[in-house]
Amino acid sequence: MEKLSTNVSRTILTKLVLPPDTNHLGTIFGGKVLSYIDEIAAIAAMKHSGKVVVTASIDTVNFLSSARVGDILTLEGFVISTGRTSMEVYVKVECERFKTREKSLTTTSFITMVAIDEHGKPVPVPGVIPETEHELELFQEAQKKRAKLAKQ
Amino acid sequence: MEKLSTNVSRTILTKLVLPPDTNHLGTIFGGKVLSYIDEIAAIAAMKHSGKVVVTASIDTVNFLSSARVGDILTLEGFVISTGRTSMEVYVKVECERFKTREKSLTTTSFITMVAIDEHGKPVPVPGVIPETEHELELFQEAQKKRAKLAKQ
Amino acid sequence: MEKLSTNVSRTILTKLVLPPDTNHLGTIFGGKVLSYIDEIAAIAAMKHSGKVVVTASIDTVNFLSSARVGDILTLEGFVISTGRTSMEVYVKVECERFKTREKSLTTTSFITMVAIDEHGKPVPVPGVIPETEHELELFQEAQKKRAKLAKQ
Amino acid sequence: MEKLSTNVSRTILTKLVLPPDTNHLGTIFGGKVLSYIDEIAAIAAMKHSGKVVVTASIDTVNFLSSARVGDILTLEGFVISTGRTSMEVYVKVECERFKTREKSLTTTSFITMVAIDEHGKPVPVPGVIPETEHELELFQEAQKKRAKLAKQ
Amino acid sequence: MEKLSTNVSRTILTKLVLPPDTNHLGTIFGGKVLSYIDEIAAIAAMKHSGKVVVTASIDTVNFLSSARVGDILTLEGFVISTGRTSMEVYVKVECERFKTREKSLTTTSFITMVAIDEHGKPVPVPGVIPETEHELELFQEAQKKRAKLAKQ
Amino acid sequence: MEKLSTNVSRTILTKLVLPPDTNHLGTIFGGKVLSYIDEIAAIAAMKHSGKVVVTASIDTVNFLSSARVGDILTLEGFVISTGRTSMEVYVKVECERFKTREKSLTTTSFITMVAIDEHGKPVPVPGVIPETEHELELFQEAQKKRAKLAKQ
Ligand SMILES: CC(C)(COP(=O)(O)OP(=O)(O)OC[C@H]1O[C@@H](n2cnc3c(N)ncnc32)[C@H](O)[C@@H]1OP(=O)(O)O)[C@@H](O)C(=O)NCCC(=O)NCCS
Ligand SMILES: CC(C)(COP(=O)(O)OP(=O)(O)OC[C@H]1O[C@@H](n2cnc3c(N)ncnc32)[C@H](O)[C@@H]1OP(=O)(O)O)[C@@H](O)C(=O)NCCC(=O)NCCS
Ligand SMILES: CC(C)(COP(=O)(O)OP(=O)(O)OC[C@H]1O[C@@H](n2cnc3c(N)ncnc32)[C@H](O)[C@@H]1OP(=O)(O)O)[C@@H](O)C(=O)NCCC(=O)NCCS
Ligand SMILES: CC(C)(COP(=O)(O)OP(=O)(O)OC[C@H]1O[C@@H](n2cnc3c(N)ncnc32)[C@H](O)[C@@H]1OP(=O)(O)O)[C@@H](O)C(=O)NCCC(=O)NCCS
Repeated sequence: MEKLSTNVSRTILTKLVLPPDTNHLGTIFGGKVLSYIDEIAAIAAMKHSGKVVVTASIDTVNFLSSARVGDILTLEGFVISTGRTSMEVYVKVECERFKTREKSLTTTSFITMVAIDEHGKPVPVPGVIPETEHELELFQEAQKKRAKLAKQ
Repeated sequence: MEKLSTNVSRTILTKLVLPPDTNHLGTIFGGKVLSYIDEIAAIAAMKHSGKVVVTASIDTVNFLSSARVGDILTLEGFVISTGRTSMEVYVKVECERFKTREKSLTTTSFITMVAIDEHGKPVPVPGVIPETEHELELFQEAQKKRAKLAKQ
Repeated sequence: MEKLSTNVSRTILTKLVLPPDTNHLGTIFGGKVLSYIDEIAAIAAMKHSGKVVVTASIDTVNFLSSARVGDILTLEGFVISTGRTSMEVYVKVECERFKTREKSLTTTSFITMVAIDEHGKPVPVPGVIPETEHELELFQEAQKKRAKLAKQ
Repeated sequence: MEKLSTNVSRTILTKLVLPPDTNHLGTIFGGKVLSYIDEIAAIAAMKHSGKVVVTASIDTVNFLSSARVGDILTLEGFVISTGRTSMEVYVKVECERFKTREKSLTTTSFITMVAIDEHGKPVPVPGVIPETEHELELFQEAQKKRAKLAKQ
Repeated sequence: MEKLSTNVSRTILTKLVLPPDTNHLGTIFGGKVLSYIDEIAAIAAMKHSGKVVVTASIDTVNFLSSARVGDILTLEGFVISTGRTSMEVYVKVECERFKTREKSLTTTSFITMVAIDEHGKPVPVPGVIPETEHELELFQEAQKKRAKLAKQ
Repeated sequence: MEKLSTNVSRTILTKLVLPPDTNHLGTIFGGKVLSYIDEIAAIAAMKHSGKVVVTASIDTVNFLSSARVGDILTLEGFVISTGRTSMEVYVKVECERFKTREKSLTTTSFITMVAIDEHGKPVPVPGVIPETEHELELFQEAQKKRAKLAKQ
């Protein structure tokens, strides 16, 4: 199977934080951000594989700064590394306070999606070609992690 | 007030079409697409003006091709022309059938947002600088339309 | 095919404006109103044709006055003119401030729905008979617009 | 306080039954219908009293026939009887299968709303004047029920 | 068919009251509570019968005290009595103000669910065995009510 | 500050998997489960601390088995260990196929919530007392992890 550039799966998602997404103090629920991360990861993995996908796992997520009602969240995601049937998707979440144009990093995350057929059975996916220096680093880290896991 | 590049307001929104967004035959509701167009236009206008905005009007929208359950909609929007307090936002909606990677144009749209203060009173917004050939054309068309309306 | 009265498709929809429908200043999102317009137009066209329908286009919508949290929106819609497979639906949106019983016009809109069969193919629809003076005017305007479009 | 006609509070609500409103077999959840009944009762009581209202109680509801994906529900509600601070709202729910134009009665219901001020304290509401024969009957039944309750 | 303990159907549902669930004064909509009651009753009846269920009726519901934004609602429900194809579910709704840990009873309710097959036809359900003193009382009341209804 | 039993924060949440929660093949989105985990963790931490809380982080989540339309998810969560202002919440997610009464483990998860005051500043929380053997083990593991992190 031919390898695909990270540009094939690259997906951008912009969200305005609204009152129903937040607690009494106007701070976004962590679960809302987690579900956005899963949404973009699923779309990126569908674009890469051309298959329906399921979430196999999500790595530890640290919420570095909070988002509030009226803030604009921008998520970018792409497939950064692949196994036989699994794809690791890298997702970066940034928050913009529109009145000041101030941006802050909300979190970064790695999430593993598996391509499946109509019977829910894992199916092979194409490999991935990183495009930038930063993507190459992420790719190599992901390879090392996978190799370490395989040894266990 | 300093003019701002179209890159300041440029916003991308990706949406996976899900069953609740569609009729019995799995075709997306027009109203769903219209609300996505308004959502991206509001975010683009908030980024451009740094103010809260309201929708003043939306030009005729023709739905050129339909989107179905499982399709991926990509919306791109940016402020293409400005008045004193109003901003015209250009929005392009494309649909991708992920299994075939086939893309089609769903619609393009012009939507006017007005920046307001806490009392709902219109407030001035910065001008805009088009970045590409295509944006320049859109900008000039918008200027002509505005001039024509002003004469009426 | 027998013609049907506007009373067959006439549909009324009442909506209480709630916080999740509005921006920080408590003003309803334009996209929310647009999706209500599409919802009522689809129901009216389904009642008229007895078929599943899709949205073909929506004419320019001007938001004349805004609606706020706690306001009551009343939408009335009916098929005002028909082609072979398409129906033009007229929708009027009014806003009532319940504490003062003050009413204002939010917008009026024309939206074109097309009847389709299970394969998504357009199917013929019955003609329409306007019932009131105002409906007759709307009907005649619609006919003229259609004739003008046909000439182009 | 001046009495108000049932026409002041009369409210109509039309809903298209969509997949997320139903169980696996495509039958609407009873809770969905109950929440529509409460929604229309609240709007009717707000129109009648010009106040914010809370639900005090709902009488037994029997679901006589079911509604399915694609059906059109029409709810009509109005204040049929009043106490000092409470309003009894009568709600009728009908279901239309759009392909056959067949209509059936889903349920009728009585729901008591209480007008409150900003501190949540009950406040007086205007009396009601029934307009039709059927409304007069409902009004008299409601009066009898109230008299019986008062004696207990 | 073997009888089942109330423990088989016992279901607990915890809900945080959020702004979209409430009116302007921050008080939960009665319809929201009614739809939670139907949701837990449906789950309890599905667990008891192993079948898809529909709501046949809900007895009078009195809202004894209100719930507000930030409150925690806890619902407990179980099948308390059965007919041939119908199950009566008892639901208790309590509200906890998390800052003071104060609890109050919002309401109790009886709701009748009917088990159905793929064609919507009622199908037999197992009987029920009450586990506690309180459940036995509820069970006996339910039996009496059923006997009285049968005589009518 | 007095220590509190795990029974104070113990929270149960039952969810019926519905079509809008799933992909085309009827498998629940991972993001949906993640948002349920955050919801129950927030409620448990609010009950324990009597404060508003925000999500600080969530540990790696592995989805061991999938949930499908019609399945019943049961989540149990409680505060298992505390720092000065943070609480670690343990959440267990089980899935029940109601037709067969078969249960499977979907995932377990650790999520850290921080108690905050009205200005978003972290505030101290009570300690926790594990009640069962299993809770004691979880508690001790959590203490070790915390000690290890502190050394770094
Ligand atoms: C993910 C799932 C399909 C894997 O099934 P499986 O029977 O373990 O299949 P396999 O052993 O062939 O593994 C398939 C791939 O998934 C990967 N995988 C399995 N579990 C994983 C985990 N917890 N984290 C990361 N990758 C995982 C395997 O490494 C393998 O990758 P590879 O093909 O690239 O080498 C299965 O565990 C599942 O259905 N989980 C639930 C998914 C789901 O429904 N998520 C939504 C919320 S519940
Ligand atoms: C848009 C709105 C704020 C304009 O208020 P106004 O009293 O007409 O204010 P002004 O006359 O100063 O106009 C302000 C700007 O809006 C523009 N505008 C007003 N109506 C417009 C329309 N229908 N289409 C496009 N632009 C419009 C004006 O041209 C002016 O632009 P400029 O400052 O760039 O020259 C007002 O009509 C309104 O509140 N409408 C409802 C908006 C809303 O709530 N939308 C959500 C759905 S209801
Ligand atoms: C309804 C409520 C405001 C009544 O408060 P109260 O302290 O009992 O006030 P009062 O005794 O003055 O009663 C006010 C009116 O409500 C009526 N009322 C009270 N409980 C009622 C019930 N269960 N059913 C019908 N009417 C009721 C009274 O008869 C009285 O009517 P009247 O003024 O027309 O004679 C109060 O019970 C409440 O807040 N309940 C919760 C409402 C709510 O939040 N519902 C949403 C879901 S929880
Ligand atoms: C509930 C329903 C299936 C009963 O159908 P039916 O043709 O009356 O069937 P039956 O006469 O065999 O009755 C079946 C059971 O339902 C019970 N039942 C029927 N109507 C009832 C009501 N209003 N309240 C309580 N129980 C009722 C019967 O007593 C019988 O119980 P049993 O088998 O334990 O003795 C049917 O009325 C229906 O489909 N209603 C709509 C349900 C629905 O869609 N609800 C969602 C909101 S619209």
